[in-house]
Amino acid sequence: MLQNIRVVLVNTSHPGNIGGAARAMKNMGLSRLVLVDPEEFPSPKALARASGANDLLDNAQVVSTLEEALVGCSLVLGTSARDRRIPWPLLDPRECASKSLEQVALGGEVALVFGREYAGLTNEELQRCQFHVHIPSDPEFGSLNLAAAVQVLTYEVRMAWLAAQGAPTKMEKVEATAILDTRPVTMDELERYFEHLEQTLVEIGFLDPQKPRHLMARLRRLYGRSGISKLEMNILRGILTETQKVARGEPHKRRPDDV
Amino acid sequence: MLQNIRVVLVNTSHPGNIGGAARAMKNMGLSRLVLVDPEEFPSPKALARASGANDLLDNAQVVSTLEEALVGCSLVLGTSARDRRIPWPLLDPRECASKSLEQVALGGEVALVFGREYAGLTNEELQRCQFHVHIPSDPEFGSLNLAAAVQVLTYEVRMAWLAAQGAPTKMEKVEATAILDTRPVTMDELERYFEHLEQTLVEIGFLDPQKPRHLMARLRRLYGRSGISKLEMNILRGILTETQKVARGEPHKRRPDDV
Repeated sequence: MLQNIRVVLVNTSHPGNIGGAARAMKNMGLSRLVLVDPEEFPSPKALARASGANDLLDNAQVVSTLEEALVGCSLVLGTSARDRRIPWPLLDPRECASKSLEQVALGGEVALVFGREYAGLTNEELQRCQFHVHIPSDPEFGSLNLAAAVQVLTYEVRMAWLAAQGAPTKMEKVEATAILDTRPVTMDELERYFEHLEQTLVEIGFLDPQKPRHLMARLRRLYGRSGISKLEMNILRGILTETQKVARGEPHKRRPDDV
Repeated sequence: MLQNIRVVLVNTSHPGNIGGAARAMKNMGLSRLVLVDPEEFPSPKALARASGANDLLDNAQVVSTLEEALVGCSLVLGTSARDRRIPWPLLDPRECASKSLEQVALGGEVALVFGREYAGLTNEELQRCQFHVHIPSDPEFGSLNLAAAVQVLTYEVRMAWLAAQGAPTKMEKVEATAILDTRPVTMDELERYFEHLEQTLVEIGFLDPQKPRHLMARLRRLYGRSGISKLEMNILRGILTETQKVARGEPHKRRPDDV
């Protein structure tokens, strides 16, 4: 799906921004870059900023008009920083992403169009876009770097794409040794821990069973919200056991190296 | 609230990235930049990439350890690109933003910590962070430019901040002349349009009242979903009126310049 979303950069001045945009795209899984009348391309500065996204630069399509860049697209979204005299349907980056994904799901192709570094897109160019997209920057300092703007929009596209696949937006690859560490404790395990904790606190003289006040409630609240894993629980229980041994004057030795 | 969220860059190699990060922060309304042991700072390269965010660079705090950078913080979030042997609570950028905003709403201060360009944060540094944040990049090409990563996280912070204020994430400033253009037509105006349209289509011989098929339904569906404004409706009605004049052989002249 992502290959049907192209990024179109119009009349870019600085080749470094083309490289930065290519890197951002590739980071987010996009591959199709179209350059309308770039001032300097190809360029070693673009390669340097692309930082390995050379294939996107090699395959970039260079055309002389926006019209050529949009051939085959069924949805065109243009970034805009300014108020316009003719108001246009306006999206924020998240809405832009969901609209783009809807469109490719229908079999369409989408263009995300970015204007010049200093002047953006002309009114004529903006009128070729069905929707305008505005990144909600601080009105006092509103103009993003071109590659940064590409990064924000392609990031939102990737988030929407991952969501559409039901894929996690977080790395969920966990090594085998880590499984025990992420499996959460069950409520009964937690309950046994609180019993063990209370008993231990009494044994060390920290908790007076005649005047318990709110101590256990506070500890329950703390551990309850911490989302403790089984491995962590083993550690906590181990600490209590050792503490009890100390309190009881039992011989104890340092646990080997199992935590 | 946003002034209580600081960006911490650890041991940055390229001063250009410090400038790019400052610009991204200022675009998103953040102001507090802390640099831990930067390789080259201050630097004209940082100023060039900051593109006007000079105040952030001037006020940047330069310290020699991560510990100093985190003084006063109640929540520390560290960006991480790699799987770690010890799994850590992991957030995506959106979750990172909502957690940060929650924290500042409680009166806390938050640090977003970014590592070195090539090596990221060390394990020891990551263990000083309560949460790790991963930008869900393509696993085949996962490493974002430092300033791009700052852009994504601060963008999400701004989106969450705007949402928390009930503020629009889109520019809603509309000029007076534009009001007519955005005010939607009412259902009865739309109904009168469909009547006018149908009558006109009959008059020009496009619609056979004896065999109407689904033509009007299809046109209703089209205009119905288009969210037509009052100004646009005036234009559409004007077109029909002129079309009828032609169909009726009435004298007609070009409308002045009112659309």
